[in-house]
Amino acid sequence: MVTFLSARDIARLVSEVGARRFWLRLVDCLRQDFARWDAFEKSPRYASHSPRGVIELMPTSDGEAFAFKYVNGHPGNAQFDLQTVVAFGALADVATGYPTLIADMTLATAFRTGAISALAATHLARRRSQTMALIGLGAQSEFQACAFQAVLGVDRLRVFDVDPEAVDKFERNMADFGPTIVRCADARSAASGTDIVTTITADKKLATVLADDMIAPGTHINAVGGDCPGKTELARELLLRSEIFVEYAPQTRIEGEIQQLDPEHPVTELREVIAGRRPGRSSDDAVTIFDSVGFAVEDFSVLRLLRDLARETGVGGKIDLIAAPANPKDLFSLLHPIDAEHDGIATPLETTQPA
Amino acid sequence: MVTFLSARDIARLVSEVGARRFWLRLVDCLRQDFARWDAFEKSPRYASHSPRGVIELMPTSDGEAFAFKYVNGHPGNAQFDLQTVVAFGALADVATGYPTLIADMTLATAFRTGAISALAATHLARRRSQTMALIGLGAQSEFQACAFQAVLGVDRLRVFDVDPEAVDKFERNMADFGPTIVRCADARSAASGTDIVTTITADKKLATVLADDMIAPGTHINAVGGDCPGKTELARELLLRSEIFVEYAPQTRIEGEIQQLDPEHPVTELREVIAGRRPGRSSDDAVTIFDSVGFAVEDFSVLRLLRDLARETGVGGKIDLIAAPANPKDLFSLLHPIDAEHDGIATPLETTQPA
Repeated sequence: MVTFLSARDIARLVSEVGARRFWLRLVDCLRQDFARWDAFEKSPRYASHSPRGVIELMPTSDGEAFAFKYVNGHPGNAQFDLQTVVAFGALADVATGYPTLIADMTLATAFRTGAISALAATHLARRRSQTMALIGLGAQSEFQACAFQAVLGVDRLRVFDVDPEAVDKFERNMADFGPTIVRCADARSAASGTDIVTTITADKKLATVLADDMIAPGTHINAVGGDCPGKTELARELLLRSEIFVEYAPQTRIEGEIQQLDPEHPVTELREVIAGRRPGRSSDDAVTIFDSVGFAVEDFSVLRLLRDLARETGVGGKIDLIAAPANPKDLFSLLHPIDAEHDGIATPLETTQPA
Repeated sequence: MVTFLSARDIARLVSEVGARRFWLRLVDCLRQDFARWDAFEKSPRYASHSPRGVIELMPTSDGEAFAFKYVNGHPGNAQFDLQTVVAFGALADVATGYPTLIADMTLATAFRTGAISALAATHLARRRSQTMALIGLGAQSEFQACAFQAVLGVDRLRVFDVDPEAVDKFERNMADFGPTIVRCADARSAASGTDIVTTITADKKLATVLADDMIAPGTHINAVGGDCPGKTELARELLLRSEIFVEYAPQTRIEGEIQQLDPEHPVTELREVIAGRRPGRSSDDAVTIFDSVGFAVEDFSVLRLLRDLARETGVGGKIDLIAAPANPKDLFSLLHPIDAEHDGIATPLETTQPA
């Protein structure tokens, strides 16, 4: 039997563990996995493009567990009241090839995206950063706010979105978590006087959400929204005067803010900072940028945490995703209705048959 | 909600439709898909190798549906009473990127492998072929026997396996289906006087299950067991005097019997024969070989049939694999326990929580 975690199960699991503890454990998993980066098999994602969007498979393995994520990107889905991005993922045991976990990853991807941003900021933001601007209040925004609150203690937010309803939604969702929220008239006002600026707009184009003159010395910029070719949020001049940190340079040069720069422009991989081989921010006056695009290792980290938490808490279901004949050489026996009653497989799913 | 079909559901579905009708519909799906070959996006499988085996992702798409199969190959699993190959697959809607079906594919792969062999034989075996040798009585053997019986009316089998228990198992499984089964002392005896010879042994090496002098003129050889680099079953001389048909030449030259031949050796792709662009067998005296290795389009065909049959019969379950927030821009709402009760998602899986 394979463990199955729906989005609802994952929500239950987070509530069981406690949101703050969940964030800290996820950051720990990410830190461990980024520190043992070379243990991971890394390969280009498989992408199937169509006129309306893209479907991708993102595999990776650390030699013990194999993970993959299925994820789409369909910008036009919003007009049908569908999500533009949905995802699910699986873990398997490398030693036997048997899958062990299948899980929704729409929610899990939002968690790991928030957690990697917070982890990067622990190395890159100035000490005792408490104020963050959040520009773009879409589906990912609360996850960023909660991650920074849990991991860094950021409890003052200056927020902006072109859509006032998005701001209302953000305030409603954050009400239980207690940060001070200041609604701002524009991005410039939001960024003013903050330690950290998070950009996470949904613009699917080369935009300038942050102009060079909006950013004071010492700021850490958490640039999350520029995450595919042709989509950026930061002015090129701002990039040129900043210290830039990335997940995996070959991928970020295609998908991230640095697609605007010369391919030789120096950047530092976050894993080098986490491992202590490269410095983070150089001084209190430097502007640092975490140019986040998402990487398969992060999906691996959140999947293995979900697997462990499902074991620890008992939350989650089981599905008989894999045929399990009593004799492995006798697959055909599964077709005998009589034997099927005796093969020891529980049937947790309600199945319907015509009368 | 995503349709979920376990191996048990698939067995139920076949029983609901009737085994013979199921085989005929599967052969129809394969025929249609092979005839529109160019509609499919074809790409190399993704393979993650480890000391004990391999884990693969095999994606394809026809522009309307995207399909992928997860499949492993772990020869050493047998010693732990585990299957050496297990698989599951998924279908998704290319227009929206949403997954629609997730299904066990251990059983489904056995079905599509039998069906493509039978479909090939309708074009390649002599008319009115009624006798088949089956050499190798492992997990796939009954599926081959049933496919040839349903599709070509083959009802006399001459069988051989080095393991007498495998022969017992085969006879037991086929008892309800009524073919005449003759147990033979060796492969030579089994092949003697038959119209069709199916080889499907588990030897993981370059073996000679069929020597050149075992095969009479006019025989059709259904070579299923030679399916990866370093694993073949047919003598090279036998290949050299035969008309060879394959699923997809670039893949078969690496994985199939023809890995023994010059890379330029002429072969015919089955799709060309199905589409009427190339002849099948040239004369009643020719020896024909279907060098079967399995291809992603076949997985697509069986997945779409399972999807359709689940709809038609009502067999199968539903799982909430994909998060479905009431407002697609408000993913975070899924974390509110109160809202979760009102988001309209049914919970068909029993989940357990600690008291």
